[in-house]
Amino acid sequence: MIKGGQSQRLSEMFSSVFCPSKPSFPPVRIRAQGSRSGVELQKPPQTMATKWAQKTVVLPRQKRGCHLVTSKIVKDIEQDLSGFRCGLAHFFLQHTSASLTINENYDSDVRHDMETFLNRVVPEGRSAPWSHTMEGPDDMPAHVKSSMFGCSLTIPITDGRLNMGTWQGIWLCEHRDEATPRRIVVTLNGV
Amino acid sequence: MIKGGQSQRLSEMFSSVFCPSKPSFPPVRIRAQGSRSGVELQKPPQTMATKWAQKTVVLPRQKRGCHLVTSKIVKDIEQDLSGFRCGLAHFFLQHTSASLTINENYDSDVRHDMETFLNRVVPEGRSAPWSHTMEGPDDMPAHVKSSMFGCSLTIPITDGRLNMGTWQGIWLCEHRDEATPRRIVVTLNGV
Amino acid sequence: MIKGGQSQRLSEMFSSVFCPSKPSFPPVRIRAQGSRSGVELQKPPQTMATKWAQKTVVLPRQKRGCHLVTSKIVKDIEQDLSGFRCGLAHFFLQHTSASLTINENYDSDVRHDMETFLNRVVPEGRSAPWSHTMEGPDDMPAHVKSSMFGCSLTIPITDGRLNMGTWQGIWLCEHRDEATPRRIVVTLNGV
Repeated sequence: MIKGGQSQRLSEMFSSVFCPSKPSFPPVRIRAQGSRSGVELQKPPQTMATKWAQKTVVLPRQKRGCHLVTSKIVKDIEQDLSGFRCGLAHFFLQHTSASLTINENYDSDVRHDMETFLNRVVPEGRSAPWSHTMEGPDDMPAHVKSSMFGCSLTIPITDGRLNMGTWQGIWLCEHRDEATPRRIVVTLNGV
Repeated sequence: MIKGGQSQRLSEMFSSVFCPSKPSFPPVRIRAQGSRSGVELQKPPQTMATKWAQKTVVLPRQKRGCHLVTSKIVKDIEQDLSGFRCGLAHFFLQHTSASLTINENYDSDVRHDMETFLNRVVPEGRSAPWSHTMEGPDDMPAHVKSSMFGCSLTIPITDGRLNMGTWQGIWLCEHRDEATPRRIVVTLNGV
Repeated sequence: MIKGGQSQRLSEMFSSVFCPSKPSFPPVRIRAQGSRSGVELQKPPQTMATKWAQKTVVLPRQKRGCHLVTSKIVKDIEQDLSGFRCGLAHFFLQHTSASLTINENYDSDVRHDMETFLNRVVPEGRSAPWSHTMEGPDDMPAHVKSSMFGCSLTIPITDGRLNMGTWQGIWLCEHRDEATPRRIVVTLNGV
């Protein structure tokens, strides 16, 4: 267990985010300046209480395909995001026939080609080997795609923002022909 | 950094889960009532100490295929789950030849068809292109499927329960012909 | 909400990791001894402040293929890891043309065969159906593989170490022919 005095041994190797809980402590930068062989300088850590926030974001129905939804989601959560110096943002899609993934935020051809891939690798229609057909020919393929890409994402929070790479964005992949609005439970925790 | 007084600026846009740490504060609902364009009302947040709980759940050996295991797992953890108003539940499968995924909890045909898909997309047997064959013809395909679906899940906790959609359940996907019991490290954290 | 007195009702069923915040409390073991039908004994929980640490680890450029990188990553974070009795370690790859997965740490043939599978299931080259071709024939396939395996991992921390199974390791899967160094944001939280 790290107690107050022992925490200084962490200070050589790692940017710890232990922010002052009392105004008399100097503020601690979460993201260190620069990087030397992947090692970053830090300041002595102090512990503080973690904050939690949770809400459900509802995305309007989308056409079948892959959709870049970063700004839609961030718009709904950015005020709370801004309150976190360091933490994690968890996004949980409450559906089994759509998925969430992180991929390129720039060229829309990437999203188009991803849909091409999904339809190529997952059989659909008369020749498909499915038993579960009662909900339409697109349903079982949608379940498969949902498990392939997954229904949740966890993204680090740094200095009040989602700390993704330059070309990364959040995609909602809608796998049904006739979709419904999609609910995403967003849980933020950090300091 | 959000300090006590500033926290009220969060109150317009987001259902923060900052529960009172002193009995004199009124309780705060984590999941807001209803939703207006994805925005939910909240009450002023207060910080409190996060609780942690961690255990290993052992699922008995399963036949090869996809298995709905939500109730088995929840039964082992529900007493601790009930102690969390808001948080995250992490499930980590300590194996490389099985996987965890979230998918439909209702029609067992969906699980059957998913196994059909996995066996169709991942080669197995004499015609398979694998070098890693020493552990049997089902082993390398099992490793592939494990990375395709993944070995961990994170599910939000709300009001003492896993906050999944109506039709979502936790699946253990067993990819070996002759399985062993499967260990899942469960980590709960929240307030 | 679990308050101090109520926390004892958790004590029957679950190894809670609620470590003493005051030196007068006896230490609490996070991983219980043994397991009886998946249920593990515990000691009464007490709450304490969660610690957070976050840094960016930079992995040097790798050849195309699957690479076991556990020791490289752990070497950069182990001093901070050692400060956590119980928690979660999150690894977020800030790229869309590589991926992270957990798989076998022993036989390198498994990594070789995984690359064989990825190249078999994702079309590449002249016959590939992609529109996004401006960044080279390996680029769109790389985006597909990145979403198939995902760009993040969450691994439990127990007693100062990543609590993976005996044969599990962290893989960086490089999907580009000419790679660049890869950045991974590591976020640790726990007690």
